[in-house]
Amino acid sequence: MIERVCVVGAGVIGSLFAGHLARVANVSCLVRREDHARALNETGLRVSGRHEFVGRVAAATDPGELEEPDLVLVCTKATGLEDAAGALAGHFPRATVMTTQNGLGAEEILRARGEWPIVSAVTFMSGTKHSDTHVEYILDTETWLGPYEDTPYNRVEEIAGLLARAELEVQALPDLRPAQWSKLIFNATVNGVAALTGLPHDVHFADPEHLGGLVEELMTEGKRVAGAAGVELRDDPWEMNVLATQRGSAHFPSMLEDVEAGRPTEVELINGALVRAAERAEVDAPLQSALYAMIRGREASYS
Amino acid sequence: MIERVCVVGAGVIGSLFAGHLARVANVSCLVRREDHARALNETGLRVSGRHEFVGRVAAATDPGELEEPDLVLVCTKATGLEDAAGALAGHFPRATVMTTQNGLGAEEILRARGEWPIVSAVTFMSGTKHSDTHVEYILDTETWLGPYEDTPYNRVEEIAGLLARAELEVQALPDLRPAQWSKLIFNATVNGVAALTGLPHDVHFADPEHLGGLVEELMTEGKRVAGAAGVELRDDPWEMNVLATQRGSAHFPSMLEDVEAGRPTEVELINGALVRAAERAEVDAPLQSALYAMIRGREASYS
Repeated sequence: MIERVCVVGAGVIGSLFAGHLARVANVSCLVRREDHARALNETGLRVSGRHEFVGRVAAATDPGELEEPDLVLVCTKATGLEDAAGALAGHFPRATVMTTQNGLGAEEILRARGEWPIVSAVTFMSGTKHSDTHVEYILDTETWLGPYEDTPYNRVEEIAGLLARAELEVQALPDLRPAQWSKLIFNATVNGVAALTGLPHDVHFADPEHLGGLVEELMTEGKRVAGAAGVELRDDPWEMNVLATQRGSAHFPSMLEDVEAGRPTEVELINGALVRAAERAEVDAPLQSALYAMIRGREASYS
Repeated sequence: MIERVCVVGAGVIGSLFAGHLARVANVSCLVRREDHARALNETGLRVSGRHEFVGRVAAATDPGELEEPDLVLVCTKATGLEDAAGALAGHFPRATVMTTQNGLGAEEILRARGEWPIVSAVTFMSGTKHSDTHVEYILDTETWLGPYEDTPYNRVEEIAGLLARAELEVQALPDLRPAQWSKLIFNATVNGVAALTGLPHDVHFADPEHLGGLVEELMTEGKRVAGAAGVELRDDPWEMNVLATQRGSAHFPSMLEDVEAGRPTEVELINGALVRAAERAEVDAPLQSALYAMIRGREASYS
């Protein structure tokens, strides 16, 4: 029975989880800034948009100040994961830890810091953070969960049940890798092309007269890597791309927001992970490698 | 004997040619803006940097106001070439016309508007335009000239002689295509990667741990296209790249300046020309095609 949840990182995704879960569980937030913790303790966490309510949370910058949770949701960006894993080391030995980062490799980074059972997740939710205590819930799309290593599947189902009670869209899967890889190939391509071109994820990405041909080739390369790595994809990334671009309002991928703000991107766990998987599986991925090299080039241009 | 030269377009390259040539010939400038013409007529054209002097020029926005020249140097950017060719149509029937645009295809655009003998040129000069009447001469690198169609070679040598007397570095070549293609492959790659990454042409472009691998593969593709098109390159683009990055001060390719200013780029005559040449020669050029698609994507992001 999950009674206490600790959400690590209260950006968009962390805030959406914490705000919703506060209605059905005892929620704490581990954040980096003292003023962020103070604001959350004082005013709670407001969710607007698809759902409207204010959730009460207990926030701190030190895990030692929080009650021992049954479940830890690690919701930092990939770029903050090493620090978050370091902060959790030695804490909450009875908790299950769930990763939500884009790309591949978040589980290994946490495993290096503790023996917690780990559940992997990918989420398609999106929102906008208006302040430290207010997040707008924009896309109420699904979060998918699956066991990592020998985490029992009923633990995964229990977490999925909790998220569903909190009115989030969720699916438990006995094997997450097919879903994780579908999103990996989608994200490596869409985030990468968006970051380099400056275009949000819009109709250009599916138009064969424009970027559609390139996007399809990048995804075909990704699918070849997945096949060589022994992963059968859950969803076809190209169909995900076509569907998403038909949604009407163009989505701004986080990697595009990062390069426009001159921030480090999640390139290593996304594009880097895909290119390294291609190398391990000994398949060529020249276009994905080009994207990876150029995004790192873009990061090098900040200084 | 070349006594009168008309320079069309007084950006960096046009100003460098006009300023230098004014010392050894009667120079006129055809520009787009009335205030630019007036300023040039009033104060002349100042060259600073490698050379220091002020050249007298006669400027106008209408070719009908200029004396008939023996030689027309078309120095607009590729994006202004259609308009310039249209303005020249029906004028200066006894003149030879020289193109200086990057990439491939400038000659065809002019031929469609008149029967002038055409000389092709590629130039490696660079400078900075400080005002409408002041250009700084930064790199005193060569300009290469060659005949287009049946233009007699002695006409090319005569122009080269004039440029040399004006103290510009110049070389006449019986066949310019090997040089034009070397620069095409160099520019398609270096301008394209710079525009997408935001990096000036610096050491990253030759570093195998960074963008060097991608740059070399892009150039290898370009060389395959040249070979299939029957062109033997004058200089190896990869060696040009390594040499240029060893120069010390990083160069800002014009396509990078264009995308940062939100201006149309020269992508069609450079990357577009290379990709279309690959299609005609029936060779694959997936990386160059990716660059071409993403630069057009970047242009689409302006609006």
